[in-house]
Amino acid sequence: MNLVLFEPAELAAPPEADVRNTNIRPLRPLPRADARARHIVEVLRRREGDTFDAGLVNGPLGKATLTAIGADTLTLAFEPTREPPPLPPVTLILGLPRPQTARDILRDATTVGVSCIHFVATERTDPNYATSSLWTSGEWRRHLLTGAAQAFDTRLPEITWTHDLASILTESNHNGYFSSARLLALDPYEATESLGQSNHNGYFVGQPAVLALGPERGWDNTDRDLLRSTGFTLVHLGQRILRSETAVVAALARIRNWN
Amino acid sequence: MNLVLFEPAELAAPPEADVRNTNIRPLRPLPRADARARHIVEVLRRREGDTFDAGLVNGPLGKATLTAIGADTLTLAFEPTREPPPLPPVTLILGLPRPQTARDILRDATTVGVSCIHFVATERTDPNYATSSLWTSGEWRRHLLTGAAQAFDTRLPEITWTHDLASILTESNHNGYFSSARLLALDPYEATESLGQSNHNGYFVGQPAVLALGPERGWDNTDRDLLRSTGFTLVHLGQRILRSETAVVAALARIRNWN
Repeated sequence: MNLVLFEPAELAAPPEADVRNTNIRPLRPLPRADARARHIVEVLRRREGDTFDAGLVNGPLGKATLTAIGADTLTLAFEPTREPPPLPPVTLILGLPRPQTARDILRDATTVGVSCIHFVATERTDPNYATSSLWTSGEWRRHLLTGAAQAFDTRLPEITWTHDLASILTESNHNGYFSSARLLALDPYEATESLGQSNHNGYFVGQPAVLALGPERGWDNTDRDLLRSTGFTLVHLGQRILRSETAVVAALARIRNWN
Repeated sequence: MNLVLFEPAELAAPPEADVRNTNIRPLRPLPRADARARHIVEVLRRREGDTFDAGLVNGPLGKATLTAIGADTLTLAFEPTREPPPLPPVTLILGLPRPQTARDILRDATTVGVSCIHFVATERTDPNYATSSLWTSGEWRRHLLTGAAQAFDTRLPEITWTHDLASILTESNHNGYFSSARLLALDPYEATESLGQSNHNGYFVGQPAVLALGPERGWDNTDRDLLRSTGFTLVHLGQRILRSETAVVAALARIRNWN
């Protein structure tokens, strides 16, 4: 946890007299049992009066002050200092993976930095994966928070998991999102060029990109036809077969502008 | 497990008459409790007479035949068909991480493909990490096998974990290994160019590379002086702070030739 993230709803209304000439906003009392409270006291070893790096989810970065350590709660205040840069203009489309794989991807893709992840049904996805408690309980968002805190960012990518490949491609195409983006689908079996080559021949820094990865059992020919007809180029990452989690990070690393 | 790996010592001596005109070699009986036996029967659902993709560790790829399913063991034979290509000429030097992080890196770096990983003591590594049962029990090698089987490769990288940064740099330098290699050290704090730029300005396909990543708490200035005086360029992967496991995969993806 490089950054302690608070929800905007955790900001408390400031006492009127207090904030005339400052940005500092009190936070609602944080229960000592909250993982963030334990992190602040036990890992960061902050004492009353100390500050630490904090941010508001999808809002500003800043400094938090540990005002008081109570028996049951921490008293905290937050001072915003700057807006984080926008997320990289990269959209991931992923054949819905098993929940444990999805957890790692939610966290790691958020850390590396993407704007949006669509987990989609394809011809070969297991329909049971979409009804996992990861999705139905809202647990998925916790992995985004972990990934963003690691990256020292407050911004979370948008996530969907109820569409199928065809509807996501159609909708994004109709919205014009694909017209300016580089469209790449990883396919270790039918691709004839590597992501490196493809990257080299025409990708330019900052251009939006859409990166599609099939499910564990790969794309079906119906999926491939859909991708090709939407304008996707099939690319590979060499001969070695990577786990989905690893392929996502490797592919993002190839297309990201790190400057 | 995309490939079932057997140790060369698991080859049984062939009955003399049997193998005059064939490459097929019997394997020692495989206990039903072995993870590979369970995988062959329960996941691959092979029955007597069926074949599956197999390989000998650091040896050939080929096909294995499930000759018989006994109460306690599987009877198997292996036919080598081709040697896998050499591992990519990439050496990793990593500040010794906590064991759970090391497990993931051993597996994932092996899958992506490296020739050698030196886990080294640096100014800021925790000395307790080197005495973990991961290293002392030999467990580390299991993660290489998992990574290689995923990649559909038989070759395992060489691993060391008992050196410090200075001794590895001195030894490799003396052996001339560094003279032809591109030397890159990830450093999110002091690097002035990104791995992308560095890659662009001079890296060429297939050139050996040495990639150094600090421990969780980063490089100390003593470490940086050592790296710089050995010829390493400090590079970064952008503003976002990645977990060590993610940084290894992302950096390898940047410098690898995927063609």
